[in-house]
Amino acid sequence: MIELASHVEGRWAKGAGRASTLVNPATGEPVATAGTSGLDMKAAIEFTRAAGAELRRRTFAERGELVRAMSRAIHAHRDELIGLAIANGGNTRSDAKFDIDGASGTLAAYADLGAELGDARTLADGEATQLGRSARLFGQHLLVSREGGAVHINAFNFPAWGLAEKAAVALLAGVPVLTKPATSTALVSHRIVQIFVEENVLPPGALSFLAGSAGDLLDHLHGQDVLAFTGSSETGKSLRATGAVVAHSVRVNVEADSLNAAVVGPDVEVGSDLWNLAIADVARDMTQKTGQKCTAIRRVYAPATRVNEVIEALRERLAAIKVGDPSREDVTMGPLATAQQLQDIRAGITRLEGCAQIVFGSATEVSPLGPSVDKGFFVSPVLLHGKQPDARDAVHNHEVFGPVGTVMPYDGSAAAAAALVRAGAGGLVSSVYSDDKAFVREAVLSIASHHGRVTVGSSKIASQAIPPGTVLPQLIHGGPGRAGGGEELGGRRGLAFYMQRVALQGDRALLEAISARG
Amino acid sequence: MIELASHVEGRWAKGAGRASTLVNPATGEPVATAGTSGLDMKAAIEFTRAAGAELRRRTFAERGELVRAMSRAIHAHRDELIGLAIANGGNTRSDAKFDIDGASGTLAAYADLGAELGDARTLADGEATQLGRSARLFGQHLLVSREGGAVHINAFNFPAWGLAEKAAVALLAGVPVLTKPATSTALVSHRIVQIFVEENVLPPGALSFLAGSAGDLLDHLHGQDVLAFTGSSETGKSLRATGAVVAHSVRVNVEADSLNAAVVGPDVEVGSDLWNLAIADVARDMTQKTGQKCTAIRRVYAPATRVNEVIEALRERLAAIKVGDPSREDVTMGPLATAQQLQDIRAGITRLEGCAQIVFGSATEVSPLGPSVDKGFFVSPVLLHGKQPDARDAVHNHEVFGPVGTVMPYDGSAAAAAALVRAGAGGLVSSVYSDDKAFVREAVLSIASHHGRVTVGSSKIASQAIPPGTVLPQLIHGGPGRAGGGEELGGRRGLAFYMQRVALQGDRALLEAISARG
Repeated sequence: MIELASHVEGRWAKGAGRASTLVNPATGEPVATAGTSGLDMKAAIEFTRAAGAELRRRTFAERGELVRAMSRAIHAHRDELIGLAIANGGNTRSDAKFDIDGASGTLAAYADLGAELGDARTLADGEATQLGRSARLFGQHLLVSREGGAVHINAFNFPAWGLAEKAAVALLAGVPVLTKPATSTALVSHRIVQIFVEENVLPPGALSFLAGSAGDLLDHLHGQDVLAFTGSSETGKSLRATGAVVAHSVRVNVEADSLNAAVVGPDVEVGSDLWNLAIADVARDMTQKTGQKCTAIRRVYAPATRVNEVIEALRERLAAIKVGDPSREDVTMGPLATAQQLQDIRAGITRLEGCAQIVFGSATEVSPLGPSVDKGFFVSPVLLHGKQPDARDAVHNHEVFGPVGTVMPYDGSAAAAAALVRAGAGGLVSSVYSDDKAFVREAVLSIASHHGRVTVGSSKIASQAIPPGTVLPQLIHGGPGRAGGGEELGGRRGLAFYMQRVALQGDRALLEAISARG
Repeated sequence: MIELASHVEGRWAKGAGRASTLVNPATGEPVATAGTSGLDMKAAIEFTRAAGAELRRRTFAERGELVRAMSRAIHAHRDELIGLAIANGGNTRSDAKFDIDGASGTLAAYADLGAELGDARTLADGEATQLGRSARLFGQHLLVSREGGAVHINAFNFPAWGLAEKAAVALLAGVPVLTKPATSTALVSHRIVQIFVEENVLPPGALSFLAGSAGDLLDHLHGQDVLAFTGSSETGKSLRATGAVVAHSVRVNVEADSLNAAVVGPDVEVGSDLWNLAIADVARDMTQKTGQKCTAIRRVYAPATRVNEVIEALRERLAAIKVGDPSREDVTMGPLATAQQLQDIRAGITRLEGCAQIVFGSATEVSPLGPSVDKGFFVSPVLLHGKQPDARDAVHNHEVFGPVGTVMPYDGSAAAAAALVRAGAGGLVSSVYSDDKAFVREAVLSIASHHGRVTVGSSKIASQAIPPGTVLPQLIHGGPGRAGGGEELGGRRGLAFYMQRVALQGDRALLEAISARG
């Protein structure tokens, strides 16, 4: 069996002692082990930090070329990585592509941004401002690279994209990365880093990698380091409250739970293009990656008069889904990633049943396709109907991280729909489907403060819409409250997390000399 | 004796049980009591939150008018407030003006920004971006008001400015405020809020006020609330790690300790205009407000060949300072604010003596002017000389929050000066004095990542420079690492903390309708 190594201090290093076992979630068979015990985390982060000097010496355009080389290397190994994602992630081929092409695509977008930013190493933030009455005395805000390391702790669901989207932004900003995927699905991340090392894609230390626990790494962070985490609220809380993180004001970005909602407007006619868009988005974003997507739609609000038709349309779509071994071509939904996930999701569905009834699927019964799937972590898509939604219900407070959604009624007013959406207490993305400008405006503005992103589905873009669950490098990804309070990507906006904004004050000509390129 | 009340839930309310006593720090005489025990903090923050609807209904211009009315009300009561600052803050008249005019000036600057932003309620963040190939499908980032309350916890040194600079930004952003000054010097803040209430300056709930402890207030915060704190690192850490703050991803801004530095360039000739600027800035920013200023200069780096002359020039300035009862016109430096501060500062000077020698003043001896100053909290200005500065020294790791500075040598190179400045591990502001463009560029860019602001003193602006210790509403105020990792002010930049950035995605025409004014 493969024993995954970490790549720290510029070399591959295997942990001593007990390792975790990575399995194929469709069969329960072990595929690799991984562990970091005995690795010197203090030395690892110090090595990462030291690599910053070389990155900061390069211009944005030069860093962008590094990021482009990462994109190309991943794309060149696409088929191999898809195979690993199927074997260790329970991904269908389509799910694996979503992750892997998301990785290379996001890297390419940041490579383009690097080219656009050109031969600079710092970014002006706004125009110079005259201070007081003197025509010489000015202020100029500048973004400069932080001089620490970026620790990235990623979730199990996107071993390629998660690594890549965080690394793209950090490296373009001039900050080296120490990345740690979730151990359970680390095979894809490990191979990506291995490819980068084999092909000398990056300068030494620009990207280190932990296969297994982060150990006491966070205890060694200081005030120029940053920590970006994607995963559960519980883990996010514990990272944020870590002694050294608090003591040195380490910048922390958390992407956590999110009860993403879709609102079907009262003007959407059954069977219209817009109706079909809404139904297709919900069905896809419920079940893609077996619902293990932080942007998956968990709640659907339909006008009371349309609830039954929404449920009927979704049942039809969900019935067409074939659950089973994702290595089979006829399978459209694979297993959950781990036994623990299966247990949590079954318990979660039971919680939802306290306020809603199952109208499709089952928490426990499923007949997966495939010969050796008896020990796989399968669940069927589950649709629930919550007849009288209340903000205190589990459906508004508990994220079930699987192919599970709940349809609920509202009275047809934007205010009522927004109040229910907001009961989720902060989310990554919600969507509103309507062609009624007044409805859209009121609904969107009423939920905007609770979200990092809101998508609007309308007839004119029904044929070309990008689903709400798809995170785009141009737009920010994150959300307040339950969603962790974080913000990533958003094109140039994402760089700010890895840079220090500093106000320069003095003679205008001197400030220009400081901010000048070269 | 005056018993200060809090203003919560739209009315004045006095605490039950034991109150704290506020004293005149020049005489030790009690001037007031304050306490919040028995007040319902959950109800207080809920009332604050509820007031947000009324603020969000107003445009930026309308909110700016509220902020302008606050500025005018403070200015109209300037003399009365100066009297209270002398009586309870130990401020000289000049120190009191710095605080009170800073308050009205910052409010006026944000009122002007409100007028500039006009009749909008949301702010576009960048241009709309085309997504994919469709000419209809766009993304647009928008800033919308958060729908929580802003809890402001301020430091003892700026009871007027601290309250005003935070409230100006929050209110302009559409977020109501629950403000808590440090209890020991709360007299000025209390009177300011009293003036606002008496003169009906603000709509109900827009600004609530705690005279005394915040009690269990932070346990009631949720994901739309924000918490801004200025004070010690220790308190900052405990606020940041509060259960509810962590659990609900409450946005936190901390301004904490900072070992602000001044670097005298090797080109600065003794006695030149630039030399005089540097010496005057250091002497002022060491002693203004008795050194109790988060932006005060604590460390001075001079070329080794100039250290003695810098010390001599500073000794001359410090010798002219008259310590005593600040109500006397001949006194130029008042007492420290509290007995605890005096104790801490004496202990701090002893720590500094481990790596530096006192060359002016004394930790214990002082002869304040005034008839009843025996029980006052006086200290003399203290200048130290650190002959062989090392990053591990107390002078680089321990903030002594009084009129205390240390002069140290460097070898005349920008790299060496920057390495010493950076040993402070993150600061609010440092300054570089030089006309040598190459020196300035290297020094500033080498320390920029460790600061929120860097000022450059040069000959051409010597007659019109704004001292580094003066915080300007146009420029950000904050700093990484030891300084708390926060960022306030900076004109429009400051609003972002109180607003949610949301990416809207959809048909361009619909997005324009959502973002439109009105």
